[in-house]
Amino acid sequence: MFKEHAVKNGDIVKVEDAVVNVTYREVQFSFSVYESISIVNKRAIFLEDHITRLFNSCVGIRLRHPFRRSQIKQSIIDLIKIDNVEKATMRILIIGGSSPQLFITYTDKLSYPQSYYNQGVSASIYEGERIFPKFKTSNLLLSYIALEDAKTRGCFEAILVNPDGYLLEGTRSNFYGFKNNKLYTAQNEKVLEGITRTRILEAAEDLGIEVVMRAPLLKEIRNKAFDELFISSTSMAAMPVRELDEISFEGNYNRTLSLMKIVREKEKYDR
Amino acid sequence: MFKEHAVKNGDIVKVEDAVVNVTYREVQFSFSVYESISIVNKRAIFLEDHITRLFNSCVGIRLRHPFRRSQIKQSIIDLIKIDNVEKATMRILIIGGSSPQLFITYTDKLSYPQSYYNQGVSASIYEGERIFPKFKTSNLLLSYIALEDAKTRGCFEAILVNPDGYLLEGTRSNFYGFKNNKLYTAQNEKVLEGITRTRILEAAEDLGIEVVMRAPLLKEIRNKAFDELFISSTSMAAMPVRELDEISFEGNYNRTLSLMKIVREKEKYDR
Repeated sequence: MFKEHAVKNGDIVKVEDAVVNVTYREVQFSFSVYESISIVNKRAIFLEDHITRLFNSCVGIRLRHPFRRSQIKQSIIDLIKIDNVEKATMRILIIGGSSPQLFITYTDKLSYPQSYYNQGVSASIYEGERIFPKFKTSNLLLSYIALEDAKTRGCFEAILVNPDGYLLEGTRSNFYGFKNNKLYTAQNEKVLEGITRTRILEAAEDLGIEVVMRAPLLKEIRNKAFDELFISSTSMAAMPVRELDEISFEGNYNRTLSLMKIVREKEKYDR
Repeated sequence: MFKEHAVKNGDIVKVEDAVVNVTYREVQFSFSVYESISIVNKRAIFLEDHITRLFNSCVGIRLRHPFRRSQIKQSIIDLIKIDNVEKATMRILIIGGSSPQLFITYTDKLSYPQSYYNQGVSASIYEGERIFPKFKTSNLLLSYIALEDAKTRGCFEAILVNPDGYLLEGTRSNFYGFKNNKLYTAQNEKVLEGITRTRILEAAEDLGIEVVMRAPLLKEIRNKAFDELFISSTSMAAMPVRELDEISFEGNYNRTLSLMKIVREKEKYDR
């Protein structure tokens, strides 16, 4: 796979030409929205959902643009075809302003070793809360800094704790915990409605797990009120958290891995 | 003035080449810092202060880069010379990551009609608080959206009100109010230490005005505890606020305009 091309405003261009001028005001203000999409077997997974969420983010921050669903879908098909993209993580970016710009680029597909699922990953906590959490915008400095801080501590992810002490979401994931066999996660209003998150909540229903739409509190984590934690994203599906804030949650992660398998199956149906 | 050139990593380039690739991670995450500088009579005003603050912003968000003060100063001199820049607003941008990038670009000098100073401007309020308020980063979505909202209401600026009800700063300005002839403005920890703000606080001392480092509360504004309001920035100096949140503060703005004149004089000394 050569990653030779990209899409700019509907045209296939060389990836070196997927550029924006730094004098453009909306580049300076990070007034843009994006989506990350898995490409598997030359197909964009849950593409309709991703485009719906992309457009919803535009409406949410009042980013007006002329791009149409059919055009974006066709551009993705064109890009997959010209570079013969088998597997990838693809990114759609729309920048607002007086001359809105659309970019579609891709990288090697994000994937993680099996050991991350068997043994779980470690996560740190970071104080902060995204503004406009319902929308997937390029206003990502908090996520960037929280993740850098996590890496410094040898952690895979940082979970954001809001001023009220709730663990709402990770820097690139949704966050969940089991307490008395019930699955807790933030209410829809407080976080990005992850496309994988929706699949996880459906999978929980399939497994007869009761879901409580309320984020775990940091103090509950510290009191060990929760006995299994995990994070989710397009690339991770459901990934167990072995350690959070230096507190161990080691286990067999049966519930998380059951959810993970169902989500991976659902992805196949979309292929 | 043709705005023909820009600086990229120390080199003079055509402004069309002042571009970044959208696949670069730190562009995607808005991991960058900037400064806006006035050029008057071919000189960059308060340049040392701006570069100090730029580097301070880098340290604050742990943005590592190889650029040196002397190099940035020389680049600005080169750019002013090649395009014969008489008056302008110049912007320095540093993007972080594995290949840090430095850009210097400029536009027509921001300036405002004399009527804005004589009659004051109107401002709206917007709920929100910048993250990392001490640093001038490209994480500007809140400012962008708040200012768009202000424009929709026919206002010149939006003042951000934080969750505790304090009016900390505008989207591109610091904020001040007079109460019992004392000047109130947010404490240093809560806001960007504006370069013009520092000059205003010095000017207040020159005029024997007592300064209270505590931001006005929205409820105090509504109770008319304040009788004169203004905003400041590099391009505005001190600009009176005629109306905030639909409450009138019309007056002769004597104190604000006195401060404004002193700040403008201080700028001349730096030329």
